[in-house]
Amino acid sequence: MLKAAIVGATGIVGQQFIVALNNHPWIKVTAIAASERSAGRSYQESLTDPRSGALRWYCDEPPVAEVMGLQVQNASELDPTTVDIVFSAVESDQAQILEPKFAATTPVISTASAFRYEKDVPILIPGINSAQADLLKVQRKARGWKGFITPIPNCTTTGMAITLKPIYDAFGIRSVIMTSLQAMSGAGRSPGVLGLDIIDNIIPYIVNEEEKVQRETQKILGAFNGNAIQPAAFGVSCTCTRVNVREGHTESVFVSAEKPCEPADVAKVMREFAGDSTAGLPSAPKRMIVVHPDPFRPQPRLDRDTDKGMATVVGRIRKDAVLQNGIKYLLVSHNTKMGAARGAVLVAELLIKEGYIS
Amino acid sequence: MLKAAIVGATGIVGQQFIVALNNHPWIKVTAIAASERSAGRSYQESLTDPRSGALRWYCDEPPVAEVMGLQVQNASELDPTTVDIVFSAVESDQAQILEPKFAATTPVISTASAFRYEKDVPILIPGINSAQADLLKVQRKARGWKGFITPIPNCTTTGMAITLKPIYDAFGIRSVIMTSLQAMSGAGRSPGVLGLDIIDNIIPYIVNEEEKVQRETQKILGAFNGNAIQPAAFGVSCTCTRVNVREGHTESVFVSAEKPCEPADVAKVMREFAGDSTAGLPSAPKRMIVVHPDPFRPQPRLDRDTDKGMATVVGRIRKDAVLQNGIKYLLVSHNTKMGAARGAVLVAELLIKEGYIS
Amino acid sequence: MLKAAIVGATGIVGQQFIVALNNHPWIKVTAIAASERSAGRSYQESLTDPRSGALRWYCDEPPVAEVMGLQVQNASELDPTTVDIVFSAVESDQAQILEPKFAATTPVISTASAFRYEKDVPILIPGINSAQADLLKVQRKARGWKGFITPIPNCTTTGMAITLKPIYDAFGIRSVIMTSLQAMSGAGRSPGVLGLDIIDNIIPYIVNEEEKVQRETQKILGAFNGNAIQPAAFGVSCTCTRVNVREGHTESVFVSAEKPCEPADVAKVMREFAGDSTAGLPSAPKRMIVVHPDPFRPQPRLDRDTDKGMATVVGRIRKDAVLQNGIKYLLVSHNTKMGAARGAVLVAELLIKEGYIS
Amino acid sequence: MLKAAIVGATGIVGQQFIVALNNHPWIKVTAIAASERSAGRSYQESLTDPRSGALRWYCDEPPVAEVMGLQVQNASELDPTTVDIVFSAVESDQAQILEPKFAATTPVISTASAFRYEKDVPILIPGINSAQADLLKVQRKARGWKGFITPIPNCTTTGMAITLKPIYDAFGIRSVIMTSLQAMSGAGRSPGVLGLDIIDNIIPYIVNEEEKVQRETQKILGAFNGNAIQPAAFGVSCTCTRVNVREGHTESVFVSAEKPCEPADVAKVMREFAGDSTAGLPSAPKRMIVVHPDPFRPQPRLDRDTDKGMATVVGRIRKDAVLQNGIKYLLVSHNTKMGAARGAVLVAELLIKEGYIS
Repeated sequence: MLKAAIVGATGIVGQQFIVALNNHPWIKVTAIAASERSAGRSYQESLTDPRSGALRWYCDEPPVAEVMGLQVQNASELDPTTVDIVFSAVESDQAQILEPKFAATTPVISTASAFRYEKDVPILIPGINSAQADLLKVQRKARGWKGFITPIPNCTTTGMAITLKPIYDAFGIRSVIMTSLQAMSGAGRSPGVLGLDIIDNIIPYIVNEEEKVQRETQKILGAFNGNAIQPAAFGVSCTCTRVNVREGHTESVFVSAEKPCEPADVAKVMREFAGDSTAGLPSAPKRMIVVHPDPFRPQPRLDRDTDKGMATVVGRIRKDAVLQNGIKYLLVSHNTKMGAARGAVLVAELLIKEGYIS
Repeated sequence: MLKAAIVGATGIVGQQFIVALNNHPWIKVTAIAASERSAGRSYQESLTDPRSGALRWYCDEPPVAEVMGLQVQNASELDPTTVDIVFSAVESDQAQILEPKFAATTPVISTASAFRYEKDVPILIPGINSAQADLLKVQRKARGWKGFITPIPNCTTTGMAITLKPIYDAFGIRSVIMTSLQAMSGAGRSPGVLGLDIIDNIIPYIVNEEEKVQRETQKILGAFNGNAIQPAAFGVSCTCTRVNVREGHTESVFVSAEKPCEPADVAKVMREFAGDSTAGLPSAPKRMIVVHPDPFRPQPRLDRDTDKGMATVVGRIRKDAVLQNGIKYLLVSHNTKMGAARGAVLVAELLIKEGYIS
Repeated sequence: MLKAAIVGATGIVGQQFIVALNNHPWIKVTAIAASERSAGRSYQESLTDPRSGALRWYCDEPPVAEVMGLQVQNASELDPTTVDIVFSAVESDQAQILEPKFAATTPVISTASAFRYEKDVPILIPGINSAQADLLKVQRKARGWKGFITPIPNCTTTGMAITLKPIYDAFGIRSVIMTSLQAMSGAGRSPGVLGLDIIDNIIPYIVNEEEKVQRETQKILGAFNGNAIQPAAFGVSCTCTRVNVREGHTESVFVSAEKPCEPADVAKVMREFAGDSTAGLPSAPKRMIVVHPDPFRPQPRLDRDTDKGMATVVGRIRKDAVLQNGIKYLLVSHNTKMGAARGAVLVAELLIKEGYIS
Repeated sequence: MLKAAIVGATGIVGQQFIVALNNHPWIKVTAIAASERSAGRSYQESLTDPRSGALRWYCDEPPVAEVMGLQVQNASELDPTTVDIVFSAVESDQAQILEPKFAATTPVISTASAFRYEKDVPILIPGINSAQADLLKVQRKARGWKGFITPIPNCTTTGMAITLKPIYDAFGIRSVIMTSLQAMSGAGRSPGVLGLDIIDNIIPYIVNEEEKVQRETQKILGAFNGNAIQPAAFGVSCTCTRVNVREGHTESVFVSAEKPCEPADVAKVMREFAGDSTAGLPSAPKRMIVVHPDPFRPQPRLDRDTDKGMATVVGRIRKDAVLQNGIKYLLVSHNTKMGAARGAVLVAELLIKEGYIS
């Protein structure tokens, strides 16, 4: 069993890591780290509201008994050599400082955006761009680290990149236009989205989100020559909105393909898409993409939990008459499962299987 | 004062007509018609639940006392010569039968889609395509009617067509891609959208909606030569979804213009857009388009009621890097005010001013 | 294996029966009945929207493959002797006609209210008033039936009756005052609760609900002498409201006990309450009542699915200073699991175990 | 015109004061105070998000132009002698420190709870207990102040106290049992209620709320002998919950009266209730209580804004069979209008009319 630390463990993403690693066949949580304020107390204590005694636990799944008793360490004093993997769930400004310290000795898998756009850092989605993991060797060498930093994508990028991959492989892509209808959980809890603001409403702006999705999609689907990633050449243009949904991002995608393709062709390549290198990974979905024939699907409440929240569910694949070789569809992707902690655990599994972590 | 009948008066759109015409300076409701089942009772009675005594009144505005006492007539037996205008709020299959009967003698302004796609029928938005009203002369002649039928657009078309108009005039349009996030009120009440289905959810499909928006937008912005409308040549591609919002459609629009244009240029032409021929119309908004500088706007709950729900509110005008001369923005349009009864009353006002109704 | 028919199978409660009986160790669904309109088609076909091809399946759990192929029978022509149990999920007016026909030969377990208030009909909650099952012998004799009719309570009664039982046994009850905050699923789908009506709102009235809860609670907790039930003497007064929650009724209960009792005493008798006669029943919850120490619980979304929706979750047990020996608390009960189909299956299990069905 | 300062002006209640005093015939806002952080900037600037330029304005009504240009003062350095009234919208811990400083020279009307339970402090609702204003003379004398502190009640107390008053006067009250379904706006914005937590859910606990309602109701309806308030002798027992409603608290009330009374009697005394001393007050509702005959009312979305949010709307007045002379009903009260800033302005108007402020 590999030993893992969760850094930023008291937050909502940190809690999701604990759930995602519960009874994991290859990885065991042995260290819990958070801010200085929480350090020195048991994890259970650190989550307990002193006034009411209520447990601030935000996952649908119950707390994991064996982790609740671990003592929380101060993240800035964590010794990364005591573990084999660090899962980092801190905010980006913290990640900027902490992750390189850990990476000097230990592999770091991060949900933060801090390092996503650096040249020697891949943004991995197992099954989509597994081969880009080789860039970690370049990173180690360039930075003189024994470990490495590998961030997962923004949760809004994940589902779209997955569904674009089989289209890109089969027909090529000229450009992508996307409008997202994102769930509240993507905004976290501090401050998060107030009920007052979202009831009977839509928030039409998510700061920095569109830029992230555009840039990350090109990098994930970029060409890798063993030394560097050449971002995919197609343009991506997004409008990202927040809607009154708890979990599960819905995205309305319009694609201009390089080659002519019919909706049935696209459905076929999506259905048959197996993903590279995910065979045998415990958290991998059975199918990366589930194509729904019912025109009223996908719906976030009904489809987000497909295959434990690890599959991307697609529907309404139709011809778009405006774009050259245009195709349009909708997708639902679970932003806090495949799009966050479980997605990061899947990356860990790939890197273990491929020998990057041991 | 012109006399008006409201047909389909017991439904939600019919009720909105009554509110929209309350204290109107030019038009007075003198006849109320509905299905045979309601006929013969007072309007008040026809809306009263016999079991509980509750009034089935669905507008935010209170019921209009003088109308509540009118006797409901059987729509299929209404004598249209007793009024100067018929406002039709019936379903499309009913409209197909009833509206030509009324139009033989009397102008009919309709919210139904039944006649929208006929060659001699304009789809009017005062301020956008007022000149197309002249097609009503062709219609009268071709059909041998003293009256005419003029339907308003689908509520999802309205806001988009309004915002495209100044872009089209100033820069030309190559194509439009749009994703809508539509309010529940657009689905009406029978059956409407169940709370069970929309809570924590999105419905990604609205039957026939996308086709309507695509076709109507081209017709509204089409060229009129006095005899026929040549639909605008640009393509329109939509994905229409339903979200948990009560009133106010939000639309995420991507436009490829003919000529280069910057976001500031587009904001300027929208802000300065006055609309043709709406001066002096009692229901016309002060500005057809309100451009909001705050990037977190427009929001349906905050912006739908701008200028009594008659203005279209736009925000986040940005460059789109994917489309040729690409511009993207969001809009909010009140689907049951400008997009339904009040919008139809505005058409009546235009036609009165221009002498088509007297 | 006992053979079961589900009558009213195309509705939402009928579908829940199919899910509740999936892989049941004692009972197998062998007949499906619905209105004449659905008869003759496969169950799958009868649920398929002819226009869009969408499956009208309303449970969170997936459809059950082996049932989807059964042919739907006309409920009014169903031969009850082909099965060992009839589960009836029809509306009350239908139940009035159909259930006695079935009961002439076959046990009928019903979610309808039609027979709940007849003298020789028990309203069973296994674990609470299992002994009242003996009234079925009286019913059979009086009506000359080989079968019987036994309805389950209204879904709002269930959780309250369960939590009152240990208080009643330990301390006696003088009176009960309750305000409910009920989920939308309790209103079903035709017409159900419109999203338009419940968004940002509360509906303060549910027709006939309060009377049902008051009467049923007294009957369930009444004394049974082998021949008749003497309703419990304590008064029950309710105000029932509908809130924007999908599943799970929340109830705010104030109890005046006969004997002095502290909140800790009440928590203890609730926690220790085992229920009579439910040992070995496959659908029985491990504990009938789960008492939550966190003052922010129970919450419907977090607690409704406790023990597969079969446990009643209680919290905030406090002293009430107004009533004599006053105690107040909140409860959450899953209205479409323990409060509907699964609760009816639990009744079937009890009656099988006790020899009433074989 | 009297000059008023608003302290805590940048928060949501502070903003509501600005709206409530817009175009007020007697009072003009001349000073704006907030925390040190906001001091020195214009009010407009202090509300502007530096990153996005968005205005953090939380009222439905638009910002008031003349106030936006006022310079924000540091609340702890505000000179209260520059104004005739201080409206305090700060949190309770701040109120404890600031309000006595202001009251030394100037009348303070507060939405904070800090001083509500002190013996020489009335909790005024004009129309309900206007005579208790005389306690302010006792307060001034006892504390040696030229000004005074007079807090308004908790927003959940207000509607219930108003509806109890005519019952208390006509029939006497033995006890009151109440369950509230409170709107999110009552929790403010920091941290407020997260959309994640309230979607498809109810929060069954609001810290300290029940104690406040119980205590304040007794004080408001207490007997005043010119020197002290003797709290009303009847018991009040509450359970307070939070539901997914934006504005408007709904309360389910059960009252045991001293004398027998029928629902029609209670409806009559409520309908005829005029309130004492509110004649001529600009913010006073036409009727303090509006009794709705429709059994599906009151509903918070439909009824909260009755008479500008200043009336309490009551419905479903029925007999309660459990309590002695029992009556039950539901009410809706606007928690951020009559229950907050507008309610405080109404108190100011009463005190101006009665000569306490000049």
